[in-house]
Amino acid sequence: MANMKLDDLHFLAMKALMTANISENNSDQIARALVAADADGIPSHGVSRIPSYAAQAMNGLVDGQAFPRLEQTATASIRVDARGGFAYPAINLGLVRAREMAKETGICGLAIGNSHHGGVGGHPVEAAARDGLIALGFLNAPAAIAPWNGSRALYGTNPISFACPRPNADRSDWGDPILVDLALSKVARGKIKLAADKGEAIPEGWCTDKRGKPTTDAKAAMDSGMMIPMGDAKGAALVLMVEILAATLTGSNHGFEATSFFASEGEPPRVGQFFLLLDPSAFAHEDEETAHNGFIERISTLVQAITEQDGAWLPGDDRWANRATSQEGGVEIPDALIEDLKARAGA
Amino acid sequence: MANMKLDDLHFLAMKALMTANISENNSDQIARALVAADADGIPSHGVSRIPSYAAQAMNGLVDGQAFPRLEQTATASIRVDARGGFAYPAINLGLVRAREMAKETGICGLAIGNSHHGGVGGHPVEAAARDGLIALGFLNAPAAIAPWNGSRALYGTNPISFACPRPNADRSDWGDPILVDLALSKVARGKIKLAADKGEAIPEGWCTDKRGKPTTDAKAAMDSGMMIPMGDAKGAALVLMVEILAATLTGSNHGFEATSFFASEGEPPRVGQFFLLLDPSAFAHEDEETAHNGFIERISTLVQAITEQDGAWLPGDDRWANRATSQEGGVEIPDALIEDLKARAGA
Repeated sequence: MANMKLDDLHFLAMKALMTANISENNSDQIARALVAADADGIPSHGVSRIPSYAAQAMNGLVDGQAFPRLEQTATASIRVDARGGFAYPAINLGLVRAREMAKETGICGLAIGNSHHGGVGGHPVEAAARDGLIALGFLNAPAAIAPWNGSRALYGTNPISFACPRPNADRSDWGDPILVDLALSKVARGKIKLAADKGEAIPEGWCTDKRGKPTTDAKAAMDSGMMIPMGDAKGAALVLMVEILAATLTGSNHGFEATSFFASEGEPPRVGQFFLLLDPSAFAHEDEETAHNGFIERISTLVQAITEQDGAWLPGDDRWANRATSQEGGVEIPDALIEDLKARAGA
Repeated sequence: MANMKLDDLHFLAMKALMTANISENNSDQIARALVAADADGIPSHGVSRIPSYAAQAMNGLVDGQAFPRLEQTATASIRVDARGGFAYPAINLGLVRAREMAKETGICGLAIGNSHHGGVGGHPVEAAARDGLIALGFLNAPAAIAPWNGSRALYGTNPISFACPRPNADRSDWGDPILVDLALSKVARGKIKLAADKGEAIPEGWCTDKRGKPTTDAKAAMDSGMMIPMGDAKGAALVLMVEILAATLTGSNHGFEATSFFASEGEPPRVGQFFLLLDPSAFAHEDEETAHNGFIERISTLVQAITEQDGAWLPGDDRWANRATSQEGGVEIPDALIEDLKARAGA
């Protein structure tokens, strides 16, 4: 492992992306998102993605030169066409406008279509929450989950993300938000791959084989690519909900129509993302005369009730802790990956 | 069991509610919601609620005479104060306006505070979907679920509901929507009570005892009142998300602050409900010149991919089947409940 300061890693990642026919501006935005994932302790969505992103860009599966196009379609709705480019520039473009709009209209919907790997779903909603907004995010991905009782994967592991602003200790500003960010598969695919590589069995209830039957054979699970959703039948219904919001609604490819984010040939994945941003002051009871802020009072009461319980924690706190450590001491990146990035960057 | 035609059951339910100091108009709306639950095969939310609703109304825990008050707080946001009355009239009032607004603004948020038992979360979102809108619903309820690793219940079993319009066979109009409607506890409390009554054990993973430790003792589980969420830690994060949307955001009581819907004395529960309505045409790609409707094309493709799999089904289809049977042949209601309602109604 090599220890890398975040700024150095960003510079290296950006250079490596630029050699893959990705514009400087897009490379910058992609590198920021990937390094942020590494800093947050999510290396699966970090700079380890660069080799596959670069191969996709070089082979026309994603357009590294694309400019996303934003269209305001109604008073409180925005559509962004990622134009076959990376998701990050499209999300960033839409999010700036959506944050402004939600403060005027109370709520804003942001649909991103014709897009690519959405990255860490928690990042865009976190940005909105640090700005005082509640936000929800829905991302779809290539197929890995079948309809309940079905035999063929149709949906991705489709993460839901949610962030809620939380006042800092003296209520002078917003602090670290409450952040929920979870894929709807029962476990991450990495755990199954690890068991398959070691020749170990996996617990029942994680995966099915190619016929849609539950299996404890990790290799059969990797072959089928079919994962069981968290919460079983209920979770399968939530996966469908996310698929509809992220893909059907945004006019994007459903999981079963989308190619892998790791493929280096074939058609572009063209998946979608959907975000909702709400201004709490439009919904909670406020009173200007008495300076009563209903939302601040309610969220503070809830946070206290959670944190005063031994063992309980606020979702997101583990992420802020990882980030603080990384900002201070850098992140550990596998040597081979650093060598790969350096070779790409010509550094 | 007594077989009751739906119209007769509505008439009886309405009369029974009116004798409990509930206005005629409110009684009519409550009775419609309860009978619809029975018709859909959800008797736990049907006319079996009338004895506890009536006791709460007679003892001031819910105001049967209340008129809900609607306020448009921003371009795309509505707040309804249920004014300590039943939820159904507040939801109905807000939903009519929210449906109109979503078609103009692309999306509309509806926060209902100072409210009572939200009933079947699927009903309001279904109504929106039959009108061509995608809708999400979030309801909170008295505490039954602890934060993950915590020891005290803070959140309700907090249902999420979601409905998506689906064209009928010849695409001439909207047909039965896709409907997701699920509480976030792993199992319904009724199953635990049944085991406790029989002196049977419950499977591990359903409930915890009073110290927050998993238990298979059904009686200890009933005593603690603490249920484990579907999807365990991930589910617990989703329960918190629903709690924030339904209670924190709407300025209502959180689960741990709310009294039981079945109590006949004490404070009113004052829980909340939150709904989001979206117009698909504001987000999906449409083309007037070619008459291409992106949403119709996308949802039809998804529905076909699901229904062509052996064993798979569309969430909601079981409900429409139950409803059709009930509309034709009525519903079966326990004799003792019918006698109770008749005695209340003076029939």
